[in-house]
Amino acid sequence: MSKWHCAIIADADWRCELAHCHARDTSMKTYRKKDYPLAEIRRYLEPGPIVLVSSAWQGKFNIMTMGWHMMMQFTPALFGCYIWDGNHSFEMLRRSRECVINVPTSDLVNEAVGIGNCTGVHIDKFKEFGLTPVAGEKVGAPLIKECYANFECRLADASLISKYGLFIWEVVKAHVPTSPKYPETLHYRGEGVFMVSGRSISLREKFKPQNL
Amino acid sequence: MSKWHCAIIADADWRCELAHCHARDTSMKTYRKKDYPLAEIRRYLEPGPIVLVSSAWQGKFNIMTMGWHMMMQFTPALFGCYIWDGNHSFEMLRRSRECVINVPTSDLVNEAVGIGNCTGVHIDKFKEFGLTPVAGEKVGAPLIKECYANFECRLADASLISKYGLFIWEVVKAHVPTSPKYPETLHYRGEGVFMVSGRSISLREKFKPQNL
Repeated sequence: MSKWHCAIIADADWRCELAHCHARDTSMKTYRKKDYPLAEIRRYLEPGPIVLVSSAWQGKFNIMTMGWHMMMQFTPALFGCYIWDGNHSFEMLRRSRECVINVPTSDLVNEAVGIGNCTGVHIDKFKEFGLTPVAGEKVGAPLIKECYANFECRLADASLISKYGLFIWEVVKAHVPTSPKYPETLHYRGEGVFMVSGRSISLREKFKPQNL
Repeated sequence: MSKWHCAIIADADWRCELAHCHARDTSMKTYRKKDYPLAEIRRYLEPGPIVLVSSAWQGKFNIMTMGWHMMMQFTPALFGCYIWDGNHSFEMLRRSRECVINVPTSDLVNEAVGIGNCTGVHIDKFKEFGLTPVAGEKVGAPLIKECYANFECRLADASLISKYGLFIWEVVKAHVPTSPKYPETLHYRGEGVFMVSGRSISLREKFKPQNL
């Protein structure tokens, strides 16, 4: 076990300064992933989990925690997200025009909060939080190995970044494990509280097949 | 108990034709709501629940079920959503420039699926699904009484509707009950499957107060 050492800096990801540094969990899960159809990624993003956005720029990696995002199109797969221009990731994403959207499961809650409460200006968050960068197939930004799913993205439209902080990404490669089918994800409720995804119920018989 | 009678029509809300009509639940919950701070509505929208979007245009009401949405700003409170131009609600929303975003709890799952699987072209969905329209304070679109929370919205930016189906709304009035604090909401996983929100966990002590 080692302690995280993060500087207290006013500029930080997830609208925050550093909160607390806490012990690192050294026994993180990993998943055996496979290529996943881009037209079906909504299954993991539409429920609204917090995601970890990884980026690379000028030889450095960064990660931020993000909850303001949405699916925008099936094919090509478009995904929109709001990023505050005070985030260290903001310029890295805007300049590199690439990212990976990583979906953490609930066992990574301490990492998600820690990443969201310190800044990447002076630290390498992969090292600080014991996460493993994996090379992307289509983008220079690294995948986070310990996350359930990884979506490699290229910036599809930069025109709304200045006005709305809105990045519109095309997802160009998806890596998703076959099991578990329904990951236990984290959904931010504000006030430091996360909802953990609960049971799944099927109303499949009430849909026409083409509407599923 | 009465049966819903919905026409099978190719154009429908939630990218669908009518699936099945099913029996109406006559014992729906309602909530005692109060005015809620607009800067805090993310607590109910950021977790990513499906919402019911109600609209009014030329003397008619409509409702659609929607899962592609995101918070975009705290103050003024901006909320973005994707709406398919094949939805009957699309033109009603674009022309009236108003809507109410209603958050249903899990007891309304049949209504949410039914509303998403028929079209408002020929039916009044409030009547068909036994829901109660309540006059808005700031907009002409009706609130759905049986939903947990209601957010009255005015269109803040129409410029992205043609290209992306993206409606950017300013939330101008919020109605939220004091109890339960954490509603059991529905999150769409695709394939007719919904995730029901699970337990809440607080990591408040790991955030700085200003970051909550």
